[in-house]
Amino acid sequence: MSEAVFEFPLKEKVRNYLRIEQLLVQLKTGACVQTAPLHMYFFDQLFTLLDLLDRLDLRTDILKDLDTHERSLVYWSQHPNINSAALEQALQNILRLRTKLKNGKKFGSDLKDDKFLGSIRQRFAIPGGACSFDLPNLHFWLHQPLAERQKAIDNWLASLAVLEEAISISLAFLRERGTFQKQTAQNGFYQGVAEDKNELIRVRCQIDTGQYPNLSGNKYRYAIRFMWFDTQQPQNGSVDTDVTFSLAAC
Amino acid sequence: MSEAVFEFPLKEKVRNYLRIEQLLVQLKTGACVQTAPLHMYFFDQLFTLLDLLDRLDLRTDILKDLDTHERSLVYWSQHPNINSAALEQALQNILRLRTKLKNGKKFGSDLKDDKFLGSIRQRFAIPGGACSFDLPNLHFWLHQPLAERQKAIDNWLASLAVLEEAISISLAFLRERGTFQKQTAQNGFYQGVAEDKNELIRVRCQIDTGQYPNLSGNKYRYAIRFMWFDTQQPQNGSVDTDVTFSLAAC
Repeated sequence: MSEAVFEFPLKEKVRNYLRIEQLLVQLKTGACVQTAPLHMYFFDQLFTLLDLLDRLDLRTDILKDLDTHERSLVYWSQHPNINSAALEQALQNILRLRTKLKNGKKFGSDLKDDKFLGSIRQRFAIPGGACSFDLPNLHFWLHQPLAERQKAIDNWLASLAVLEEAISISLAFLRERGTFQKQTAQNGFYQGVAEDKNELIRVRCQIDTGQYPNLSGNKYRYAIRFMWFDTQQPQNGSVDTDVTFSLAAC
Repeated sequence: MSEAVFEFPLKEKVRNYLRIEQLLVQLKTGACVQTAPLHMYFFDQLFTLLDLLDRLDLRTDILKDLDTHERSLVYWSQHPNINSAALEQALQNILRLRTKLKNGKKFGSDLKDDKFLGSIRQRFAIPGGACSFDLPNLHFWLHQPLAERQKAIDNWLASLAVLEEAISISLAFLRERGTFQKQTAQNGFYQGVAEDKNELIRVRCQIDTGQYPNLSGNKYRYAIRFMWFDTQQPQNGSVDTDVTFSLAAC
């Protein structure tokens, strides 16, 4: 039985965290490959990420989150059965990250100032616009020895380390807030009420049944509908039998 | 000494051919990889290609080109020293491709009708918009066994085979029209007159000198300027010494 977890954000802030998390994964996968055509993917994802960072005020959101996490850790520390070593470690992580965030520049600002990246970024905004004749300097760069290219990529990635840590800690705290519990979607449909703090709904379900969940909702309530995955008719195919799945409201 | 070839189209038609050639290379590289994050790249490139095919009337351009190539092959066949077996082979290729083009549907129309691709394409137009929660059906697909994913990808690629052959033959004929000849760019600058049929300028030069060529021009004349590749100041750094390079006007 193979399972997969589907995550659905209920708030814009979490939506952004998840987008950035996924872009970072794709960026790092693109950075590991050794062929020039896939390095194009690295740049593509990097510029998409920079565009997103330009638009968002992530730092404020994350700092607010850290304050909340800190308060809840302090609250838990008064609980008699708590693992105080783990709690201390979590608090240390928060404090360290907060210092880095307060002292650091805006996310991605180093990359924005990079002259080479700046000279090619604009063409990547045009679909299919980053051809070798559009950007002979990029074509030149792609012909550099792999070790040199890899070094440059590592440098660019290094300047995103704080962002990666911040997103990773924020999402880890968020995901830990909920635990998976068995639920049944009657006739493939489940309706839930988002409690005050719920920001992320996680659905774990079997996927070898050919079913996947779809969620619509907001910060007050949400509905999960299971769909049949059918490549020929992907838009209509609601499951009309009961579906057992695990749900974590975080 | 490592060398690289830089190609610069002088006409819109050739610009499109080169864009599609590069997208197909990137698409096929993305198709070979085995990790889900890089399959995202496959879709990204596929939809960029479909957008481009939607906008262009490639088939007409390619058919016109094939007629021209055929006429020039017939002309060469009267030359006494010609390798008539090779020429016959080239003519066969042209005739075969022309039949396929005339009988086939518009490039990419099969992919446009694919329901699964249709259901995810729109979100890929939004930078960073193809996150797992935006497209749970894609998230489901990415969790399918690799063999199944690879089979689907092979099917999609198969429907682009005629396009690939057409672009490859058109560009091969075009590239064969010119032969590389040594030239010198005085003070890093070379000016050329495009003769009647020139559609593509190819520059072969050493790249371990840290220099790369830039071309500006149109179907009447063109100028090549060699630049220093400097990641810190990529926009200004013209080479002001003589540069030896090879040029093919095709």
